[in-house]
Amino acid sequence: MKKRSTNLRVRLPVFLFVSQVIFVVIYFYFVTYDEHADARFQNNQTNPMHNAVYKDYPFFTDIQVMIFLGFGCLLAFFRLYGFGGMAFNFLTATFAIQWAILVQGYFQFYHDGKIHFGVINLINAEFACAVVLISFGAVLGKTSPLQLLVMTLLEVPAFAVTEWVVLKYLRINDAGGSILIHLFACYFGLGVTFVLYRSGLTEGHAKENTSYHSDILSVMGTLFLWVFWPSFNSALTLKGDDQHRAILHTFIGLSASTLTAFALSAMLSKKGKLTMADIQNVTLAGGVTVGASVDMMISPAAAYVLGMMGCTACMLGYKYLSPFLAQRCRIQDQCGIHNLHGLTGLISCAAGICAILMADEEVYGPSLYEIFTHRAPVEGDPKLQELQMLIPGLKPGLGRTAGEQALFQVAALFSTIGLSALGGILTGYVLKLPYLAAPSDDLCFDDVVFFEVPPDYDAPFNLSYKMTAEDSPDVQQQRVVIQLTDNNMENKCA
Amino acid sequence: MKKRSTNLRVRLPVFLFVSQVIFVVIYFYFVTYDEHADARFQNNQTNPMHNAVYKDYPFFTDIQVMIFLGFGCLLAFFRLYGFGGMAFNFLTATFAIQWAILVQGYFQFYHDGKIHFGVINLINAEFACAVVLISFGAVLGKTSPLQLLVMTLLEVPAFAVTEWVVLKYLRINDAGGSILIHLFACYFGLGVTFVLYRSGLTEGHAKENTSYHSDILSVMGTLFLWVFWPSFNSALTLKGDDQHRAILHTFIGLSASTLTAFALSAMLSKKGKLTMADIQNVTLAGGVTVGASVDMMISPAAAYVLGMMGCTACMLGYKYLSPFLAQRCRIQDQCGIHNLHGLTGLISCAAGICAILMADEEVYGPSLYEIFTHRAPVEGDPKLQELQMLIPGLKPGLGRTAGEQALFQVAALFSTIGLSALGGILTGYVLKLPYLAAPSDDLCFDDVVFFEVPPDYDAPFNLSYKMTAEDSPDVQQQRVVIQLTDNNMENKCA
Amino acid sequence: MKKRSTNLRVRLPVFLFVSQVIFVVIYFYFVTYDEHADARFQNNQTNPMHNAVYKDYPFFTDIQVMIFLGFGCLLAFFRLYGFGGMAFNFLTATFAIQWAILVQGYFQFYHDGKIHFGVINLINAEFACAVVLISFGAVLGKTSPLQLLVMTLLEVPAFAVTEWVVLKYLRINDAGGSILIHLFACYFGLGVTFVLYRSGLTEGHAKENTSYHSDILSVMGTLFLWVFWPSFNSALTLKGDDQHRAILHTFIGLSASTLTAFALSAMLSKKGKLTMADIQNVTLAGGVTVGASVDMMISPAAAYVLGMMGCTACMLGYKYLSPFLAQRCRIQDQCGIHNLHGLTGLISCAAGICAILMADEEVYGPSLYEIFTHRAPVEGDPKLQELQMLIPGLKPGLGRTAGEQALFQVAALFSTIGLSALGGILTGYVLKLPYLAAPSDDLCFDDVVFFEVPPDYDAPFNLSYKMTAEDSPDVQQQRVVIQLTDNNMENKCA
Repeated sequence: MKKRSTNLRVRLPVFLFVSQVIFVVIYFYFVTYDEHADARFQNNQTNPMHNAVYKDYPFFTDIQVMIFLGFGCLLAFFRLYGFGGMAFNFLTATFAIQWAILVQGYFQFYHDGKIHFGVINLINAEFACAVVLISFGAVLGKTSPLQLLVMTLLEVPAFAVTEWVVLKYLRINDAGGSILIHLFACYFGLGVTFVLYRSGLTEGHAKENTSYHSDILSVMGTLFLWVFWPSFNSALTLKGDDQHRAILHTFIGLSASTLTAFALSAMLSKKGKLTMADIQNVTLAGGVTVGASVDMMISPAAAYVLGMMGCTACMLGYKYLSPFLAQRCRIQDQCGIHNLHGLTGLISCAAGICAILMADEEVYGPSLYEIFTHRAPVEGDPKLQELQMLIPGLKPGLGRTAGEQALFQVAALFSTIGLSALGGILTGYVLKLPYLAAPSDDLCFDDVVFFEVPPDYDAPFNLSYKMTAEDSPDVQQQRVVIQLTDNNMENKCA
Repeated sequence: MKKRSTNLRVRLPVFLFVSQVIFVVIYFYFVTYDEHADARFQNNQTNPMHNAVYKDYPFFTDIQVMIFLGFGCLLAFFRLYGFGGMAFNFLTATFAIQWAILVQGYFQFYHDGKIHFGVINLINAEFACAVVLISFGAVLGKTSPLQLLVMTLLEVPAFAVTEWVVLKYLRINDAGGSILIHLFACYFGLGVTFVLYRSGLTEGHAKENTSYHSDILSVMGTLFLWVFWPSFNSALTLKGDDQHRAILHTFIGLSASTLTAFALSAMLSKKGKLTMADIQNVTLAGGVTVGASVDMMISPAAAYVLGMMGCTACMLGYKYLSPFLAQRCRIQDQCGIHNLHGLTGLISCAAGICAILMADEEVYGPSLYEIFTHRAPVEGDPKLQELQMLIPGLKPGLGRTAGEQALFQVAALFSTIGLSALGGILTGYVLKLPYLAAPSDDLCFDDVVFFEVPPDYDAPFNLSYKMTAEDSPDVQQQRVVIQLTDNNMENKCA
Repeated sequence: MKKRSTNLRVRLPVFLFVSQVIFVVIYFYFVTYDEHADARFQNNQTNPMHNAVYKDYPFFTDIQVMIFLGFGCLLAFFRLYGFGGMAFNFLTATFAIQWAILVQGYFQFYHDGKIHFGVINLINAEFACAVVLISFGAVLGKTSPLQLLVMTLLEVPAFAVTEWVVLKYLRINDAGGSILIHLFACYFGLGVTFVLYRSGLTEGHAKENTSYHSDILSVMGTLFLWVFWPSFNSALTLKGDDQHRAILHTFIGLSASTLTAFALSAMLSKKGKLTMADIQNVTLAGGVTVGASVDMMISPAAAYVLGMMGCTACMLGYKYLSPFLAQRCRIQDQCGIHNLHGLTGLISCAAGICAILMADEEVYGPSLYEIFTHRAPVEGDPKLQELQMLIPGLKPGLGRTAGEQALFQVAALFSTIGLSALGGILTGYVLKLPYLAAPSDDLCFDDVVFFEVPPDYDAPFNLSYKMTAEDSPDVQQQRVVIQLTDNNMENKCA
């Protein structure tokens, strides 16, 4: 691979300023406040405390913490890529949210010639952002910030279209986003990393490892995600008992997967020790696995079992499937998103289908038709009027049977996977364009490429590295007299 | 002490999987949703926004942050035990909450043959979890994860029974849990560590110290606890002005103890410098001290004084009592929980009794009988009907006088201490069973026993350590000649 | 500069205990609960869930995180001053809040001979605290904790008086506090640092730099501030659509400034690399810039443009203005608060004036007179009665025109800057008094002065420093030969 310049001085500002000018123009001509944020809609009937902001904002702040601190710390696990993990997450997330506000706005919140904008749009945009950040995990450390921004530029519309097709035409139940968010993100990311395959990294990379502090930082990220995941899975459910159940199921699922992850981590280790990478990732599997059925009456026991199953699949994926994909399928999945989001998403989807098939009025009462809106009787059906006596404000549905709904879920699953993989592959080819500042193989996983780094950034590894690298590749009883020159770092980078 | 295997490969998974199977079975047969989480309870009168989840969930997320991030970071203060502090906290907390959902569920939420489950159960379970984590502080670094899980297995039922006895039969006021949570946790933990006494650690341990980064991480934990402690102390009070006062008092108490802690830290230091361990722990004393009277009309000034008193007791405890307990009473209290939770809990209990004795209708108005429910007139008393005109929904009480209530508080204090110490001692003997993978003395406070650690995990101490331990068998192949002048740090400062 | 003692053993406790005794006395005689926290105000009409605590507390906890974790981590960016950054922030913030409760209480919440105290007072006090912490940024690393406390002691009343004058007499719109908080804090801090000018630091300082970990920690602080800034800017707006808009504008402003900051950071770097200091600070500029007009109907596009403008001004300030101020004006602004709070505050103020001039009933509807309360018709005006039909509870105003209101904003701007700069300069002279334990030049930015530090606190810099500076008098006696063997870690563990 020919060394290309990774200098960002021109290309990053050009990309960002052009994007921002476009954002401002679209905002100026097409974005207005929604009725809950517009002063004109206030009248003498308005109770300010009934404004939608009080329903949505607490969930929004929780998700904010997950996106910026949770993902940020979690992705900072490489010892020399802490700046990159946190700062590129920050940049990508901000860009993704801005872009998603506009793109999703067009598909979901556009009427009367304007995108109507409120906190609910932000929650939706943060979901789109989560999609991008998950995909980011597949290519962490191997991409320039410019490539990440271009990926975001392409992934957000791909996601928004898929979301729109699936929710508008297939009309599925997926409160926690296991299908739409996790599976889309996973297969998009795998598509990208498949195209960006680097043969030079198949044997591993000297910098592809953690330090004591980066491991701890990454666990903090995991904990931020773990703690607020119930808010993520329940943010867009119906209010009331549905949201309540979503919180409970997510908590139980995460607990089950956490306990299982510790058990399997010890069990699969030859020395019988725990591995931090498992604690950082596999503990979270339960949050994904309960997603598709998170607001349904699946019972706490089922949520527990789902957490255990998701965790087991995820752990086995890390152990056996990821190496296979990397060596045989040219899929270098840096953070193992296929394990944490793909396998678990598939289980979640299957569980959602089971839950749909088993749902009946005996368990749900008449609110069955609120949760499974598409099973509600069609407009004009006398059953609808009966139900509206019991549940005022119930909207007419499509009169689907459980089996029909299940088939639509299956259709959504395959179309999501298909569209995302296709989108990922095409995006991958775009990312291979020159001028996007991709780092060379030896400078992957290294902050020195894109950041001014302080002189200690690779201490204490630096010391041992230099000591051991003088004449032999291995660390074997060396005698070292340390000489540090002032150019030990800057000259690594072209 | 004979070196026993600390390999977790079989025993940890066996313990966890057996537990999880039991959990799932109990969940399946005995746990159902409570009325706020069950779709069947929805009818045409239901206002979804009045669901209990909106009252409880904000407090629950705050407590989640305290449990997982607050305790996690705080307990990661040893320089070589950061993984252990954070990961064992994560494991223990998750296990404790799951187990407490079931055990407390049986005592508090069981009717019609089922445990009824909602977010309120989770808050209660997180309180039980806090108990376990406080006790964990006494034995931090000296126990295997398996021992911690066994301790949790025994402590949660001991706590649940004590809680049930005290709340059901003695019926006390203890909104912030100073008696039930802090004193129970403290004396249980001391009981355990008394039995687990290690004579080899009386002279201190080479790894029983902090690093610059672990100190900073630990302060972050302190700040998470500090910031959200008002939510902890107010989560289970009555809604309205009671909860409002609980928040105010906790904030004031914490502020007072923080300022006092900085003052005392400088005052008790020979060099007139601040000690990070004080800032990490003693600043929090006020949160405990206001606990037993946190929802009462004690006045902001009293909350302030309580914070100062608690902090002073805690600081003097660290300085004088902890060394005494370690050397004379065989009580090696690793994090000083006796200072932060025991001494402060006793002060809090005394303050609660004073507040109860001084409470009258002049200060509280008729809501006196809401806060001190057991002082409300008994069913049938004409005074009850009068009061119910003023406070609709007031429940009949036990007609206790202030003095009677105070005596019950005293009874609760002694029975809690007695039961917890007994429980702790018995648990300690169980933890001494073989096969629980207790680390040997020299491997205490060291992540290398139970974790795969990255190569830098004890840098840069590694260097100096080797210098001072040339004859140790562990490091005998290493020869290091380093000449450091002894005045490289201290003499920088006048 | 003669070396003065920096021993805190007597002076810090004396200052803190005297303050605390005064606090307690004032609390005892003058502070009581407000009507939402006082049990006596409960009657049979009271709905506990309508207590003000439920409107205010969620915003309070978000701001708590910003103050203690956000500022704490952000200020810990110096490699040898992490303890100082976090712990002095903790101390100063706690002291500032306690003091502000009393001082602001006197000006804003005092009636019937008592300060009435509730969570709303805490929010106001945290705003005063933010003022102090911003000013702290100007003198970070060059002041003793005692100097910081004295500064707080003087700045809080100066701020409270200014706030009272501006809000009571000039009556301005400044929901996000760009004028009152950011400009006051900035010019007060600059005044202090101007007087505390140290000629010895003009050439920079060997310890005035970051480490890899301190940079990451500081970014975490930035993210805490970023995530919760919408709560900060909206905490004191009117409830309903006003608060909703404040959240949206803050989010958009921050997003715009984040993207701009990354672009400019690369553009202004000779090597085309990103600088962490920019990501830590300049990304936040948008939060300040939208402040003065944050609750108005400025349109999302305007919020976006404000974010970009604020960020650009801030970045250019860091690059060109700060060095100029330091070298020519004797203003050593350690964290560049003039860029992040001063320049942005000025832009925000200008934007607020434009928004006021453009505000009319066509855009706002009748709620114009709710947001711009001072433009509402005076008592007795028939227009007022008309409006009160549309907006029940609308209070009579001062009948100002838009132009008049704009002039008052200008007056507020100049009086705030004048009062704050004057207050800062006077405070600076007080801080030069002896006995306040100011560190000598060579011990600035160094935790060893005021803290017990663990032996690794300046590793690995220590090592490389010594190696490369063999002739320096500090380290000339040191020679290092290190022999490392490969079995230094694994063989410790059985």
